[in-house]
Amino acid sequence: MLDARPALHIIGFLICALSATLLVPAAADWAYGNPDWHVFVYSAIAAGIFGGFMVFATGGRAGLSLNLRGAFLLTGLSWILLPAVAALPFTGLGISYTNAFFETASAVTTTGSTIFTGLDDLPPGILLWRAILQWIGGVGIIVLAIILLPFLRVAGSQLFRTESSDTSDKVEARSFDLVGRIMLIYTGLTLACAGSYFVLGMTLFDAFCHAMATISTGGFSTHDASFGYYGSTALHWSGTLFMLTGAMPFYVYIKAMHGDFRSLFTDSQVRLLVAFLTIVSIAMAFWLSDRTHIDLWQALTLTAFNITSVVTTTGFATADYTLWGPGAVGLFLVLMFVGGCSGSTSGAVKIYRFQILYQIVRTHLRRLASPNRVLTMTFNGRPLSDDVPFSILAFLAVFVATVAIFTLILTFMDLDLVTAYSATVTAITNVGPGLGPIVGPAGNFTSLPDAAKWLLSAAMILGRLELFTLLVMFDRDFWGF
Amino acid sequence: MLDARPALHIIGFLICALSATLLVPAAADWAYGNPDWHVFVYSAIAAGIFGGFMVFATGGRAGLSLNLRGAFLLTGLSWILLPAVAALPFTGLGISYTNAFFETASAVTTTGSTIFTGLDDLPPGILLWRAILQWIGGVGIIVLAIILLPFLRVAGSQLFRTESSDTSDKVEARSFDLVGRIMLIYTGLTLACAGSYFVLGMTLFDAFCHAMATISTGGFSTHDASFGYYGSTALHWSGTLFMLTGAMPFYVYIKAMHGDFRSLFTDSQVRLLVAFLTIVSIAMAFWLSDRTHIDLWQALTLTAFNITSVVTTTGFATADYTLWGPGAVGLFLVLMFVGGCSGSTSGAVKIYRFQILYQIVRTHLRRLASPNRVLTMTFNGRPLSDDVPFSILAFLAVFVATVAIFTLILTFMDLDLVTAYSATVTAITNVGPGLGPIVGPAGNFTSLPDAAKWLLSAAMILGRLELFTLLVMFDRDFWGF
Repeated sequence: MLDARPALHIIGFLICALSATLLVPAAADWAYGNPDWHVFVYSAIAAGIFGGFMVFATGGRAGLSLNLRGAFLLTGLSWILLPAVAALPFTGLGISYTNAFFETASAVTTTGSTIFTGLDDLPPGILLWRAILQWIGGVGIIVLAIILLPFLRVAGSQLFRTESSDTSDKVEARSFDLVGRIMLIYTGLTLACAGSYFVLGMTLFDAFCHAMATISTGGFSTHDASFGYYGSTALHWSGTLFMLTGAMPFYVYIKAMHGDFRSLFTDSQVRLLVAFLTIVSIAMAFWLSDRTHIDLWQALTLTAFNITSVVTTTGFATADYTLWGPGAVGLFLVLMFVGGCSGSTSGAVKIYRFQILYQIVRTHLRRLASPNRVLTMTFNGRPLSDDVPFSILAFLAVFVATVAIFTLILTFMDLDLVTAYSATVTAITNVGPGLGPIVGPAGNFTSLPDAAKWLLSAAMILGRLELFTLLVMFDRDFWGF
Repeated sequence: MLDARPALHIIGFLICALSATLLVPAAADWAYGNPDWHVFVYSAIAAGIFGGFMVFATGGRAGLSLNLRGAFLLTGLSWILLPAVAALPFTGLGISYTNAFFETASAVTTTGSTIFTGLDDLPPGILLWRAILQWIGGVGIIVLAIILLPFLRVAGSQLFRTESSDTSDKVEARSFDLVGRIMLIYTGLTLACAGSYFVLGMTLFDAFCHAMATISTGGFSTHDASFGYYGSTALHWSGTLFMLTGAMPFYVYIKAMHGDFRSLFTDSQVRLLVAFLTIVSIAMAFWLSDRTHIDLWQALTLTAFNITSVVTTTGFATADYTLWGPGAVGLFLVLMFVGGCSGSTSGAVKIYRFQILYQIVRTHLRRLASPNRVLTMTFNGRPLSDDVPFSILAFLAVFVATVAIFTLILTFMDLDLVTAYSATVTAITNVGPGLGPIVGPAGNFTSLPDAAKWLLSAAMILGRLELFTLLVMFDRDFWGF
């Protein structure tokens, strides 16, 4: 039978860390003279007691020795239990625990769907807490994607087993060092983003909150109008640039820290992502400019920002692009599936899977016509091991099936097809806004039934953990019975 | 370089056969005293000249020796050139060639989407021609699926290489014999269906037209109200049964002809399809009865008929099920993807691919938790060869990508998302009706822009030929340059 204690032990420590983090919004509310600060303090105490209890109850002999199944359990449970605890302060605002959990799951999965209206009037502590949760969720997924997932061989991530370090057998020993470097890069990028936003006209508070939501490709704003609140073209381009920064594969930043700056420009994921965003943004700018008679530069500012926002799975909005016409609706729906690079904060299918899927299909087509031909697939110049295409295809199958099943369940809650389908897609891809009047860029998730909110929370967590990290626990054999 | 002559030679013969077939609706119109009979005769003459020219121009040395690429070319071109010729009589009714080709492609792919309104007032010849085209398309796909596709190894069809005959090396020699048996079974089922319809109250003409559209899982009707024109419960159940008959794997019928009746009940595709239809129909009957307060038997008649119609990709309608509520809309959209069995007249993803996909995902999940475990996948009790899962996954990837690209193009023609998406899905799965006011069960494809009709015709043919049979020709190497 599986020993769950090592995983629970580590999660206990993480909850204690969360408890300490809760003091930051408490301090903010206290500094701004808002009485809500005590909600954060109470939450911090509750989290501290709960986390401490977990640490002590699971300590002793078990220690920190995680086996493969323990690592799966740690990953899955941490993305369920941490949001469950981090949701506490929201309930202090008088919203239901369902809403609180949805908002927190949306934050830590860096999705960015919200149940709040009137963001502009919310107390600073709660706005800061939303931003901090996205920021933590963002760095959490990078650490997971670079250090843990390649060893779990989930959904093609084994491809990056040697990407983050050339001596893969030493990775475990180097994990702490690697986490440090990731944190350094992530913090550096966030500060650069916040500085840029501040210089270009945001308040210091807004600049920090938006920077945390940008680098994490989360998309929570402090204003109902999101980025549309600021009329500034420069801020839009700054946002576009930093969203892209968050969707880059962090292993290339690590390589750059080691002096290998060429990777920033030669990595095949980066090149494809940038080329794709550039071509689609420019094409759509011409289309939009022609259709709405706004000038081309203004159109390009809008298309580049919104397309980058959706493709990087950030979900900031500046305009209700669903009003641009059916073509834009279709395009943004398709773009939701794309995603950024592996080892970044972005969700969805991700660039490298498309690169491999393209090769799979091409190889298959050629083998049909020439059965005896020898063909090898490569990624970033290296030949692929046999299990990578299979893992990625299995991921695709489960992804499609999950979207179908979740959409179906939502329609039986009497949600219309566009709402049900786009809400499912935007949740599982961690984008944020869906389509239609309810969940679209101008809408809000609060009016959905409670059951739909729990289902979409599950979709966000499933999507964030590349589906298989959670699904593996549904196999009876996993538990060793 | 690829020698296209053997393929064109055979297609020439098929067009000559089509020319002869055109005399059937000519005779019908003549017998009913309708002056349109000369349109069919002119079309028959044109087709005869065109087909004869092809036979003579490509004859001689090339003969009938088809290699692998020639077989692909034959399959792909025949599903493009035959509709192009068979569309001729429709233009005699004064409709555009675009509409005529769409209607014909819809017929021979057994899709059943129509651009006609006022079916009840159309001359008998044209109604008969629509039914005959579906019937020919149905038997064509069975022959293709049982005899040719397994050797082309397209999209998992290699699985059935030994299903149709236990001595696979002799299949080519036995092909003519096999075609004869398939024709016999197919004709027998059609006569049984027509007889049943006639006894239960249809006119003889309607009974034959509907029987041809039922066994081929095509779905063309002679009335705008489709099956809803007949209020008869018995006719609904008869339709449900015979649609299922057409969606059965024809190799089990062939086995039954050889005395092996057990296959009819032990084949895993058949069992899963019947179990699936039964469970979904009953569950939906309770839901519908509860929601609309009609009695349970009436609800079951409606759900069994409409669910079987969509799952077998027939597309007959009795009621606008999209008015039952969002849950029904979501369900019917998901059901469109299901499809019948391999080696039947039905389209879409098909039961056996789901059986294999399920095993792929389960195997993958188990290997994640226990990397060293040895697991084998099976189908109908036999172990799977390695290339089958890969083929099926590649099919899934191309299927999803095609739906996304075609939907996107249709939205840029200013069709709303539900229309664009459901029209694409219903075309590629060969179901027939889509969703929404334009292409839904109560709508009509005639108002779509011409470009959309050509695109959807392409989707129907792509879907009918399991995508890869056509796509293989887009690889430059295929042509041997």
